[in-house]
Amino acid sequence: MNTHTRSIHRRQSSGVRVPAHVPIAERRRYIYSYSTVTRGTGRLMLMAGDQKIEHLNADFYGKGIHQDDSNPEHLFQIAHKGDVGCLATQHGLIAAYGMDYPDVPYLVKMNAKTDIVPTAQAEPLSKALCSLDDVIRLRQYGKLNIVGIGYTIYFGSEHESEMLAEAGKLIAAAHALGMIAVVWAYPRGKAVQQEKDAHLIAGVAGACASLGADFVKVNMPTEGAAALHEASQAAGRSGVVVSGGGTLGTKEFLQHTYDTIHLGGARGSATGRNIHQKSLTEAVAITKALSAIVYKNASVDSAHDLYTHSL
Amino acid sequence: MNTHTRSIHRRQSSGVRVPAHVPIAERRRYIYSYSTVTRGTGRLMLMAGDQKIEHLNADFYGKGIHQDDSNPEHLFQIAHKGDVGCLATQHGLIAAYGMDYPDVPYLVKMNAKTDIVPTAQAEPLSKALCSLDDVIRLRQYGKLNIVGIGYTIYFGSEHESEMLAEAGKLIAAAHALGMIAVVWAYPRGKAVQQEKDAHLIAGVAGACASLGADFVKVNMPTEGAAALHEASQAAGRSGVVVSGGGTLGTKEFLQHTYDTIHLGGARGSATGRNIHQKSLTEAVAITKALSAIVYKNASVDSAHDLYTHSL
Amino acid sequence: MNTHTRSIHRRQSSGVRVPAHVPIAERRRYIYSYSTVTRGTGRLMLMAGDQKIEHLNADFYGKGIHQDDSNPEHLFQIAHKGDVGCLATQHGLIAAYGMDYPDVPYLVKMNAKTDIVPTAQAEPLSKALCSLDDVIRLRQYGKLNIVGIGYTIYFGSEHESEMLAEAGKLIAAAHALGMIAVVWAYPRGKAVQQEKDAHLIAGVAGACASLGADFVKVNMPTEGAAALHEASQAAGRSGVVVSGGGTLGTKEFLQHTYDTIHLGGARGSATGRNIHQKSLTEAVAITKALSAIVYKNASVDSAHDLYTHSL
Amino acid sequence: MNTHTRSIHRRQSSGVRVPAHVPIAERRRYIYSYSTVTRGTGRLMLMAGDQKIEHLNADFYGKGIHQDDSNPEHLFQIAHKGDVGCLATQHGLIAAYGMDYPDVPYLVKMNAKTDIVPTAQAEPLSKALCSLDDVIRLRQYGKLNIVGIGYTIYFGSEHESEMLAEAGKLIAAAHALGMIAVVWAYPRGKAVQQEKDAHLIAGVAGACASLGADFVKVNMPTEGAAALHEASQAAGRSGVVVSGGGTLGTKEFLQHTYDTIHLGGARGSATGRNIHQKSLTEAVAITKALSAIVYKNASVDSAHDLYTHSL
Amino acid sequence: MNTHTRSIHRRQSSGVRVPAHVPIAERRRYIYSYSTVTRGTGRLMLMAGDQKIEHLNADFYGKGIHQDDSNPEHLFQIAHKGDVGCLATQHGLIAAYGMDYPDVPYLVKMNAKTDIVPTAQAEPLSKALCSLDDVIRLRQYGKLNIVGIGYTIYFGSEHESEMLAEAGKLIAAAHALGMIAVVWAYPRGKAVQQEKDAHLIAGVAGACASLGADFVKVNMPTEGAAALHEASQAAGRSGVVVSGGGTLGTKEFLQHTYDTIHLGGARGSATGRNIHQKSLTEAVAITKALSAIVYKNASVDSAHDLYTHSL
Repeated sequence: MNTHTRSIHRRQSSGVRVPAHVPIAERRRYIYSYSTVTRGTGRLMLMAGDQKIEHLNADFYGKGIHQDDSNPEHLFQIAHKGDVGCLATQHGLIAAYGMDYPDVPYLVKMNAKTDIVPTAQAEPLSKALCSLDDVIRLRQYGKLNIVGIGYTIYFGSEHESEMLAEAGKLIAAAHALGMIAVVWAYPRGKAVQQEKDAHLIAGVAGACASLGADFVKVNMPTEGAAALHEASQAAGRSGVVVSGGGTLGTKEFLQHTYDTIHLGGARGSATGRNIHQKSLTEAVAITKALSAIVYKNASVDSAHDLYTHSL
Repeated sequence: MNTHTRSIHRRQSSGVRVPAHVPIAERRRYIYSYSTVTRGTGRLMLMAGDQKIEHLNADFYGKGIHQDDSNPEHLFQIAHKGDVGCLATQHGLIAAYGMDYPDVPYLVKMNAKTDIVPTAQAEPLSKALCSLDDVIRLRQYGKLNIVGIGYTIYFGSEHESEMLAEAGKLIAAAHALGMIAVVWAYPRGKAVQQEKDAHLIAGVAGACASLGADFVKVNMPTEGAAALHEASQAAGRSGVVVSGGGTLGTKEFLQHTYDTIHLGGARGSATGRNIHQKSLTEAVAITKALSAIVYKNASVDSAHDLYTHSL
Repeated sequence: MNTHTRSIHRRQSSGVRVPAHVPIAERRRYIYSYSTVTRGTGRLMLMAGDQKIEHLNADFYGKGIHQDDSNPEHLFQIAHKGDVGCLATQHGLIAAYGMDYPDVPYLVKMNAKTDIVPTAQAEPLSKALCSLDDVIRLRQYGKLNIVGIGYTIYFGSEHESEMLAEAGKLIAAAHALGMIAVVWAYPRGKAVQQEKDAHLIAGVAGACASLGADFVKVNMPTEGAAALHEASQAAGRSGVVVSGGGTLGTKEFLQHTYDTIHLGGARGSATGRNIHQKSLTEAVAITKALSAIVYKNASVDSAHDLYTHSL
Repeated sequence: MNTHTRSIHRRQSSGVRVPAHVPIAERRRYIYSYSTVTRGTGRLMLMAGDQKIEHLNADFYGKGIHQDDSNPEHLFQIAHKGDVGCLATQHGLIAAYGMDYPDVPYLVKMNAKTDIVPTAQAEPLSKALCSLDDVIRLRQYGKLNIVGIGYTIYFGSEHESEMLAEAGKLIAAAHALGMIAVVWAYPRGKAVQQEKDAHLIAGVAGACASLGADFVKVNMPTEGAAALHEASQAAGRSGVVVSGGGTLGTKEFLQHTYDTIHLGGARGSATGRNIHQKSLTEAVAITKALSAIVYKNASVDSAHDLYTHSL
Repeated sequence: MNTHTRSIHRRQSSGVRVPAHVPIAERRRYIYSYSTVTRGTGRLMLMAGDQKIEHLNADFYGKGIHQDDSNPEHLFQIAHKGDVGCLATQHGLIAAYGMDYPDVPYLVKMNAKTDIVPTAQAEPLSKALCSLDDVIRLRQYGKLNIVGIGYTIYFGSEHESEMLAEAGKLIAAAHALGMIAVVWAYPRGKAVQQEKDAHLIAGVAGACASLGADFVKVNMPTEGAAALHEASQAAGRSGVVVSGGGTLGTKEFLQHTYDTIHLGGARGSATGRNIHQKSLTEAVAITKALSAIVYKNASVDSAHDLYTHSL
């Protein structure tokens, strides 16, 4: 890791590197945003709550899903009572619930699409659902703690260029407003044979670094956590975070997260369903265990102990 | 229903929750708009009068349709003499007739398409027919009571991303101007097999909540009114309202509305043809019966009595 | 016809209803524009001169067309010497010839397409050829009497949503600038089997009313003039005007126009080729006969007498 | 030719008709621009130098092309030493060479496409390569004599509406900035069977007049120069100019130009390859001969004498 | 080479020709930008570091690639310790690393696409990933030495017109801000049979000159370095630079570069993988050798000696 002394002046005591295009007047806010979600560790524990558009109600209602999850407020209650770096969801939900949970750091997920149209029918395309002015209004009028934005890019879609263009511009503009930016980087489309190939994941992670993303959310490579290392390197100063572990048991899920960090070089975690499909009590417990691993370098065992004691 | 004490400051005595992105200066207007259409009940009785584009003249002229309905002014006369929460129609009709009926609360239906092109030929797409500046001019120069906007999203269309993006931005902007927003949420396109599947309807209701909609207009699930409950939960603080009941008799139609509310958890009704295809006298009577159910928790029998006495 | 007393304040002595979105400062101009083209009758005699793009030179040169028509100035000479409510043509011709004929009321036809690509090859799309700023410059710098705009919508085209959106916004903006708006409403595209079906024509007339059009130009229904009545009703306060009668003789053409008004409830006429394909003298005579029918309720016989005496 | 006395005030002593949308403050500049390229004759001698994008290097290098033409500066040297009404080329070349040849009147060719994709593969589309602000910067900062803009429309392409819209707006805006506008009007696309049919050419010439073009560049009709007369009439006050004569010898080429004017009613010429594919000396001589025909009504023989004496 | 005395005033002592559209106030900055990357020689040594999007991780990780290249910072370290005219990469990487390497002249590569979708599946399209405002923020707030922008055009793609339009406007706007512009000019698409045909390369080089590019990056023609001469001529005052030599050995690569300049008339080099896939030490040595050839007219032998002594 190369760190020149000349960069110190912009990192100040916070240790946060401010991107070069952040206006002087917004540097302090950027450092605050970045520090809030990383707690000075350089790592991010992101709770993903954007699936109400992405997966409609399949992630919130049905077999194996606790009934607490049928109410959108569940996401906010977890983030409020639990321990999360930030809650990522759409602007509409933040507008409706945020002022009741003003302590939660929010990341506005800018774009989304449903999964009704299968990839085999049409190449995926997802566009921004609000403007940055709308985001700023949440911050300004709701006094909410809006720390950043999120954007999904479907790499390999025939509409890729449209998403790359919108993402790149939103990231630069978010930075200019003192916010961080996280990209959900998913290879998808008929040109993509292996969505979870480690080399491809490394490629899109590096591409997101080129777009200025502070963090890149990717899937776990088929080859396992160690294979993620290529992506962690390719992303450089952009941190790689990995999506949650499907239908794993809690301990296995914590191990999964631990491995992405300690074997794969990930700089945090990004978990949705493995948190919110549980009861409020259990979901809160999981966020505490995850945050212990991400922010405090806890072992899997000690994190799991924290989880069980929180139930 | 979780209500934190800290939210009280923005609900004031009205009991209305103001979305976080509403500017301070527009909160009072938002509360007024919301209160006007809900009458302090949290429920909405919306009279839908946007079919002159959606269905051309098929809903206004022909067998079984009263000849009063052939004149567009019929919509305004009903809203004026009857009892509606708001009349939803396009800006052009409001511009032409609104000043003669200044007592009616109007909701400007922003987008529309005709049904000439069948879904089998081309995926549905509907775009905004006017800007919010145009809406504001109706309010400002016509002194009209413009309380909100409406927008139709065809979930599952290959053009879904375009409508999601336009809807999300319009909703945030309408809130910023002190107006409410209602989404007409219809699954449609070749990827959609069962437009009225309860789980799918719940999904699009939740998606609209994520976009910030105050109310979501959906179809009655095939599975019946009780199955609507999933959608009512998924929409959270956004209220679900259900479209009218096709060719039902009046009492059956009132029962349908009652059931969506009391069995399905709907927060109101959204009715078009079952109102305006009747004579002015009968249409007015139906609005009174519907409003009794929606706003006054009337039973089906007492609402039907109100209807018959109004004839 | 329902007219509330409260509408009087905006109709003043003119009897013109001003759309609600017209700014106070532009109401007088709107009344002037509307009164100019209707001469206080509520009816419009529009001379259509936009075919140089729509039909290229086929309408201006060839067998059965007087050689006067080969010069674009012919359109302006007719409007100047004849008796027309307004001359509708593209901004370029008005810019070139208008200052030589400053007495003519002009309606700027905003969009146009050629007929080179057959509908069977590609769905029709027509986009605006100039902005409203460009229209205003004609009024401001040329001191021209620009009373309105026109726009063609191909209902049933797969590009319908694009034209609906552009039309709706231009109409609202034209009103905001004190001008009227006329929509040329043509069903066309592979989804349209019967372009001149009376029920379909009524549908698009009602749709244009929803967009705010002051007048809607439609084709004569296959079923005859009386069948137009459905459209006249559906359009409400928007007036229906009917395109010219193809290759009819003069008296038959005047009868056609008379019938659309007196049998079909049309509020005027919109004629192109039946005027300008004649010699200047004859064209002028036809405009006088048409205006007598439209504005003075002349009988076909007396209008035809006026025509023959004008030759 | 109808000329009303009231038009005199805007033609002043120059005899130039100013389009109605030209602001008062820019009328003098428009008259200057128009007079510069027409030299008070109403005719235009345009040297077309836009083929480096349209035809890539095929027009500048190869058998039968003088090696002088391999250097882009050749275009400027010809215009500087020769006798041209204006040199039409892209903004990039004018930015690079214009300040070395400040005496040349320039017409900025706004749009262009290459000919790599054959029409059989995709319908032609050409979009503006710079904005009018960019054009004005050439005038303002380079002190260049920018007299107008040019735009190519492929009539009959499925993308026709996009080009019509961009052209119409650019023409009005160019006029508003005191510049003239020339349209390159080419029928092309799979719907076009006979690109050089005289009736079709007349049609697109008339369409360009409707867009406000000062001059329209068309191909020579298959039927010969006399057949061009239909187009000259259809274009009205917009002047028709004809593209160069392919691989003709010099005298035949001059005869071709003479005929388009004296038989076909053209108002000038628009020549590219027949000028710049020659050596500088010969190219300069050709421009002098052409300008003699266009501006001085020279006979073919006297123009050819001028050519041979200039060698 | 034709140089008129009147151009001297804008070349001043620098010898740099300022494009005509550069505002007076930005001329000094343009001269600085141009001089920085050319060092007064008219030639450019560009280090291309934009492949993290274009080729994902294939260029940075794998067999034959030094592990130094797996870290994006490698690009900056090379540019910092080596000898490059400028480092071209995306705005995100410059934002993240630039302030640690403030001595490096940066060229912001504006657009990019991945290579996941094969050309056989969809015609290539690449759109700008940030705005010029974003570029200026890097310069203004990061105090970075941003000397220009880069843009890739896929000539012959069915989306060519979109890229031509965006490139042309960005080039003019970059010049207006005192920056240079480099176009990556690649023929690609199903209409392109021979991407490296010398005549085609000359064509696109000339087209880029027409767009105002200061330099054009092309591939080496199949016919060899001498065949590049046609492109060098066609580009006129725009300099042609050639992409690196694939998998050549170092000396062969230097010979390749030398030949493009001395046989092909290139005005510099544009090298990516042949630099950054090496270890830092070797990469730095290669930049020194390349810069010696480009800027100091070094022979291949002396450049290679410089390379070996730098190891």
